[in-house]
Amino acid sequence: MTFRIGYLVFPDITQLDLTGPQQVLARVPGAEQLLIWKTREPVRSESGLMLIPDITYADCPPLDMICVPGGPGMNALLTDADTIAFLRRMAPKAKYVTAVCTGSLVLGAAGLLKGKRAATHWAAMEFLSSFGATAIDERVVVDGNVITGGGVTAGIDFGLKVAAEVAGEQMAKAIQLMVEYDPDPPFDNGHPRSADPAVLAMLRERMQPMQTQRAAQVEAAAAKLR
Amino acid sequence: MTFRIGYLVFPDITQLDLTGPQQVLARVPGAEQLLIWKTREPVRSESGLMLIPDITYADCPPLDMICVPGGPGMNALLTDADTIAFLRRMAPKAKYVTAVCTGSLVLGAAGLLKGKRAATHWAAMEFLSSFGATAIDERVVVDGNVITGGGVTAGIDFGLKVAAEVAGEQMAKAIQLMVEYDPDPPFDNGHPRSADPAVLAMLRERMQPMQTQRAAQVEAAAAKLR
Repeated sequence: MTFRIGYLVFPDITQLDLTGPQQVLARVPGAEQLLIWKTREPVRSESGLMLIPDITYADCPPLDMICVPGGPGMNALLTDADTIAFLRRMAPKAKYVTAVCTGSLVLGAAGLLKGKRAATHWAAMEFLSSFGATAIDERVVVDGNVITGGGVTAGIDFGLKVAAEVAGEQMAKAIQLMVEYDPDPPFDNGHPRSADPAVLAMLRERMQPMQTQRAAQVEAAAAKLR
Repeated sequence: MTFRIGYLVFPDITQLDLTGPQQVLARVPGAEQLLIWKTREPVRSESGLMLIPDITYADCPPLDMICVPGGPGMNALLTDADTIAFLRRMAPKAKYVTAVCTGSLVLGAAGLLKGKRAATHWAAMEFLSSFGATAIDERVVVDGNVITGGGVTAGIDFGLKVAAEVAGEQMAKAIQLMVEYDPDPPFDNGHPRSADPAVLAMLRERMQPMQTQRAAQVEAAAAKLR
């Protein structure tokens, strides 16, 4: 039996939002994983890594699971009619509707998070309520068939949680052991709650232009849902 | 100032060995990251994700840092004359000689780990001594200018450690916060020391054919070094 997973890809995606879950879920029995975009031309991720779409929105077959990764390029997707229409068309047929990092906001813009609990990147938490969702500060949030992960590296925790849902705990544990997910960060600086205040302040300042653009895009997308 | 990082890519690479560090190190000031292989045709990773080499062995400029990721396809590299010659040619000019996961064995086969302490995937630890290296069961091992990471997801810890070396602790902490590396694995099954014994036994059995092939390749590569 095939378990077909489709990931949106787009210019300025944060590639680890996608490559974390893609690595973990590759070992789920029957997994077939597709990268989906408007065209099949390679797209450049935020970090410079090129990703090759497997299929277009127009040609995409039904998906058992849809996953929207995040990244700076996500801002443009919030008001992108093709992307929103694609998600609205695919989601009702999917067994799982999912996102990692700021990809959650795109699910929100498609109206798929109304009344749902959801995770996202810490810097995007404030925007979830605009889409009728409740922001939850956890690595992975499961609300019915909607599964969302926190920022970037949370995609690995997300992938393992999905693997357990789809293929059982023993399989998820085997995958965790294969990818040696026994993390030991060299610093305790992975979340605002523990971060060095000076580092957090510096990042918030540097992210301000992107956040301002994001706020405007969220507002525009939310207005369309009303 | 440019800090040029080159990652080997090859068929059946474990993409997360590469994409973890690539994401983390993209934010090091001046970072220029290249994927290197024999040709510029896209290569298929173990999980199916396609990777596009930026440059060939023949055309690669000097690197500040060379990094060899691992994966099942690494077995073939151990006795691949082009790859071994490339590493031997590039390493003396590089500021850092590095590997993640089973990529460490390829450094070993190139004679670059003699007398060094090194990390690798838990299932490959037994092979490091064949190359004159001492296997260390840690996420990241720094021995002079040789920096090696453990299995797959250890590439993220590795990337942060390298970022701290290259750009200082504050920068590494900022990157950690950006990628929200505040891990919370859903299971405590990421290393043989904590793994469910049944899961470990199942994996060891499933990996046996690859391990047998690996042992033969290690032996052939080590014989060339003697």
